[in-house]
Amino acid sequence: AKEAATITATSGLVHVKNPHLDSMEEDVLYHLDLGTKTHNLPAMFGDVKFVCVGGSPNRMRAFAQFMHKELGLAGDGKDLADICAGTDRYAMYRAGPVLSISHGMGIPSISIMLHELIKLLHHAKCRDVTIIRIGTSGGLGVEAGSVVITDMAVDSSFQPRFEQVVLDDVVVRSTELDRDLVEELLTCSKEIPDLPTLIGHTMCTYDFYEGQGRLDGALCSFSSEKKLEYLKRAYDAGVRNIEMESTAFAALCRLCGLRAAVVCVVLLDRLESDQIRAPHEVLREFQHRPQRLIAAFIRKPKA
Amino acid sequence: AKEAATITATSGLVHVKNPHLDSMEEDVLYHLDLGTKTHNLPAMFGDVKFVCVGGSPNRMRAFAQFMHKELGLAGDGKDLADICAGTDRYAMYRAGPVLSISHGMGIPSISIMLHELIKLLHHAKCRDVTIIRIGTSGGLGVEAGSVVITDMAVDSSFQPRFEQVVLDDVVVRSTELDRDLVEELLTCSKEIPDLPTLIGHTMCTYDFYEGQGRLDGALCSFSSEKKLEYLKRAYDAGVRNIEMESTAFAALCRLCGLRAAVVCVVLLDRLESDQIRAPHEVLREFQHRPQRLIAAFIRKPKA
Repeated sequence: AKEAATITATSGLVHVKNPHLDSMEEDVLYHLDLGTKTHNLPAMFGDVKFVCVGGSPNRMRAFAQFMHKELGLAGDGKDLADICAGTDRYAMYRAGPVLSISHGMGIPSISIMLHELIKLLHHAKCRDVTIIRIGTSGGLGVEAGSVVITDMAVDSSFQPRFEQVVLDDVVVRSTELDRDLVEELLTCSKEIPDLPTLIGHTMCTYDFYEGQGRLDGALCSFSSEKKLEYLKRAYDAGVRNIEMESTAFAALCRLCGLRAAVVCVVLLDRLESDQIRAPHEVLREFQHRPQRLIAAFIRKPKA
Repeated sequence: AKEAATITATSGLVHVKNPHLDSMEEDVLYHLDLGTKTHNLPAMFGDVKFVCVGGSPNRMRAFAQFMHKELGLAGDGKDLADICAGTDRYAMYRAGPVLSISHGMGIPSISIMLHELIKLLHHAKCRDVTIIRIGTSGGLGVEAGSVVITDMAVDSSFQPRFEQVVLDDVVVRSTELDRDLVEELLTCSKEIPDLPTLIGHTMCTYDFYEGQGRLDGALCSFSSEKKLEYLKRAYDAGVRNIEMESTAFAALCRLCGLRAAVVCVVLLDRLESDQIRAPHEVLREFQHRPQRLIAAFIRKPKA
């Protein structure tokens, strides 16, 4: 891991850690409907500097449109083309140096996208790419509408690790994120009015209902007391929000030398309820908050 | 489990196994953008008899249009409305007694949808519902274009189980599927020309690349020999195809008393390659095959 970090600092290139890739004549990025023979990836993506990912395709299109406007790019920005139009597995939009991609819900879905995205950045010879997940989450002792910048992604036992099955073996990976980036983002948030932002651990689960202690799924075998006992333990371990992608995202980006951050808005406080009942307009404004923060960060002159 | 099966046979109703649901004044099915106060669920869904689910929203719209035509329903069927239009997490279409819903990729994504779908069927008081996953998969020693009817969904260690994290505990669930339904579907397939169909175990993984032994991901730490050794062990254990949802689907449907089947087309033989390279038209025809089988099954007069 240390050696990898050194190489990154020197070249700024993305690492694929796969000796087999060099011997492949063609690489079909199936779920993105792109490929090394069908597309000129360096011409299409070589100058990308920021990749923003989030669950919902509509939200990631809205983010690209917002960035288009924020960066003062020519043209309307309303009719940005979906670069992955040939498939509906993911959607991808571009605004200047910013790529905006949806990843669906859950670790398996984001993992497929990240494997193909990382190969795309590698084939395109991108340098010094920062990748940020802008998502939604449930909060723990945190008011709805707050934005949480993740300092550590933890699993359902509050450990900073991601267990990856490789063939039928389990490999444990670190979920460490870039500390400087966390601080930069927090500094950024302070300059934006009405953007309550905090730093905290983010818990990543494989399930939205039983796995997050919800009482409102089709199945529920535990009491309200057991639920609260679990969520309070998570709170005491430093967890401030819960979502379903951060550990895999952190682990994969780290291994491939990508500077990565996770910035999620809280849609409800799970210590108070399970159901997301805020009106659509309120939820829409909440979901725009991480976008406003990341737009400010991208626009800020870098040292 | 035995008691549950008896109740099903008697009432035909869907079981939610959650004592908390009764005391909820309203149930918001957030990811479907439906709810018990905002929608008349019994009127909208009370007569649904078949639910078909698959990863891609476009494919599930195409299936609903195809069923509309196959059932000889009035009107064009080209402009079927997305019942979940208020969200882009999932898409849902209806053709007569058939509901067609997308579930995205991976266990977490299908689990969220199934929890909310099962509650929907419960609130709507549906009876005698059959649910079928029509998906895509990688084959093992099986030619591309073949359709595999799953007799057993197994995990990456070839075991017929699904490990569900409940709070921070792990619960092991059976992934048994309805045997009679498997035989009925196979019988159906024999009456359709050009539809190579077989029965086999289906392996369900959390990852498309490292977890399925692919040599073409952003990360790969194993040799071609190790990959083939693993896939051949899977073949010897009876696995004929690999996908990413079947164990969770089987476990959840079983617990809730839904008669369930998994029918996936094979897009490539993983003993021969990793990349999906067939032309779009060929893949489209392959993906239509499970739809043709299920349409024939639904149209068939029942005993």
